[in-house]
Amino acid sequence: MKKTALIMAGGRGERFWPRSRRDMPKQFLSLTDDGKTMIQQTVERILPLVDMEDIYISTNRDYKPLVRQQLPDVPEENILCEPVGRNTAPCIGLGAVHVTRKYGDAVMIVLPSDHLIKYTSIFVNTLSDACDVAEQGKNLVTLGITPDGPETGYGYIKFRPEASVGRALAVERFVEKPDRETAKEYLASEQYLWNSGMFIWKASSILDNIRQLLPDTYAGLERIGQAIGTDRQEEVLEKEFEAFKSESIDYGVMEKAKDIYILSGSFGWDDVGSWLAVERLKSSNEFGNVVNGNVVAVGTKNSIIQGEDKLIALVGVENMIVVDTRDALLICDKDHAGDIKKVLENLRICNRTEYL
Amino acid sequence: MKKTALIMAGGRGERFWPRSRRDMPKQFLSLTDDGKTMIQQTVERILPLVDMEDIYISTNRDYKPLVRQQLPDVPEENILCEPVGRNTAPCIGLGAVHVTRKYGDAVMIVLPSDHLIKYTSIFVNTLSDACDVAEQGKNLVTLGITPDGPETGYGYIKFRPEASVGRALAVERFVEKPDRETAKEYLASEQYLWNSGMFIWKASSILDNIRQLLPDTYAGLERIGQAIGTDRQEEVLEKEFEAFKSESIDYGVMEKAKDIYILSGSFGWDDVGSWLAVERLKSSNEFGNVVNGNVVAVGTKNSIIQGEDKLIALVGVENMIVVDTRDALLICDKDHAGDIKKVLENLRICNRTEYL
Repeated sequence: MKKTALIMAGGRGERFWPRSRRDMPKQFLSLTDDGKTMIQQTVERILPLVDMEDIYISTNRDYKPLVRQQLPDVPEENILCEPVGRNTAPCIGLGAVHVTRKYGDAVMIVLPSDHLIKYTSIFVNTLSDACDVAEQGKNLVTLGITPDGPETGYGYIKFRPEASVGRALAVERFVEKPDRETAKEYLASEQYLWNSGMFIWKASSILDNIRQLLPDTYAGLERIGQAIGTDRQEEVLEKEFEAFKSESIDYGVMEKAKDIYILSGSFGWDDVGSWLAVERLKSSNEFGNVVNGNVVAVGTKNSIIQGEDKLIALVGVENMIVVDTRDALLICDKDHAGDIKKVLENLRICNRTEYL
Repeated sequence: MKKTALIMAGGRGERFWPRSRRDMPKQFLSLTDDGKTMIQQTVERILPLVDMEDIYISTNRDYKPLVRQQLPDVPEENILCEPVGRNTAPCIGLGAVHVTRKYGDAVMIVLPSDHLIKYTSIFVNTLSDACDVAEQGKNLVTLGITPDGPETGYGYIKFRPEASVGRALAVERFVEKPDRETAKEYLASEQYLWNSGMFIWKASSILDNIRQLLPDTYAGLERIGQAIGTDRQEEVLEKEFEAFKSESIDYGVMEKAKDIYILSGSFGWDDVGSWLAVERLKSSNEFGNVVNGNVVAVGTKNSIIQGEDKLIALVGVENMIVVDTRDALLICDKDHAGDIKKVLENLRICNRTEYL
């Protein structure tokens, strides 16, 4: 069966501020040494499985120029611009409608655009197996990440080890982000994987589930599908999206659906959740510093320094994140990286939107 | 007797890098809340004693435009540009030659241009008393600062409490910067004051001393004096300065001269030796931060933040000096402020002179 991909690139992530901004979110940044942006890597990674012309990018109108610029080989008609953000369920539904309209039915690989994967070949093999499972029925398939600690920042998925289709394990349930104690229990039980946000299914399978679980959304998606290719296409898209309830695919579908399978992967997944991730992605020097830009460091250790042309001189600095951009500079103790959002709150309150 | 002042403004201090640069040294910076530069404050402070037209500024050619710009009321002919730097003895000698030529003789108040004084009226009173002592004979007078700790960064002056002329104590000897143990002994003896680098004497008194102690310099100064007002003035100045031995007034004269008096002062003197001084000069906020510029601080304490237009966001930062300028940024742990010079060494070695 035809394989397609839907890469979700509408996010406005703030955790890489001040490098990431409303007009330049994380997925369009390069955080690795190869100079490629995360969305470029996401596309490149799946090319062994999916032809370029079958890759869809879901985003919003503001980011369309960035997508065109960074992914010139993706056909323009495959860039699906949501008129307003309504979370992942309408986004994925829209993708499924386009795939259905073009191919009747096809496998859809749904991927975030802002995650990194270290071992591409293992990932591609896992994804290929997942496609095989998805083709075999009406099931929904997801990739789970083997936890390496009691993380409280991810959703978890409980599987039933006794029920499997090849490498795929039957999912018992999706659970939202746990507290630390619960996360420890999950880890100890060895029956939970992290929710990676990556899904594999036939377009018909996910649309069937949306029809049953989110009937209003389904009805709107049907009207959008009927208008595709007509001169009412944009008008209908806008009207229906405006009316959609904001709903995540996890909560709206996955937590309620039956017949879900999960394939676990150890392919070096990283959701690059904050500047701290840069230490995992880039090589550090002999003093434990990860340095980019025009930097002179004296007695400086275990720090992340990301600059541009301006000279950054550091003296006796330890355990610090320093990010310098044209109009904003961040200096953040690593142990307080979670508080970067307080800076953004402050800027919002003061209506200093030029820095967001 | 006529009172004149010689303000020495040729220094190329590096300790306020990156705000201070070779083309913008410390004396031309404003480090206090009133927005005035240190050299402007130095001039303003002595106006109760000295007329503007009797104030001489000694500097080098590179800084003449800065002096003109910051001190437009000082007569241009009073800006004495040394062709090359030869330390303070030739500098002061040149000033004395100009004063002698104009007034025959006059009191000279010699001041650094990069110190701060908190209590101006106490300072002016002390200086006025010093002028009285200087007028009375061939003596050399200096102001001493009452030590508030065993500082190793200053020279010390030992006085003889039993020998005094009014407020002025006879000086026993000048001593160079001591080690910590010696400084402690000085402090305990209560017979030492800090060398402030401020001197008061008649032009004839200091020239007499130079004649006796630095005869070659004196001969050169005589030739310079004879050429003033002729078309050979610049040529002779250049030739003689080139030939002068580099010599400080402390080592060349004060350590060897007789008949020196010292007046002690508690007028809130600060030599503003490093960024740490800014905490003493500017008011800090409730978190102990001294902030200038466009700053958002979250969980940040006891830090010195000096920026310009660029947004500086700080998260969980403590005990840090942050100085942002157009082309260079310094981030320095306060306990390592002495190592800022290592950054400059590094830049020199790498021939990155644009940042010096």
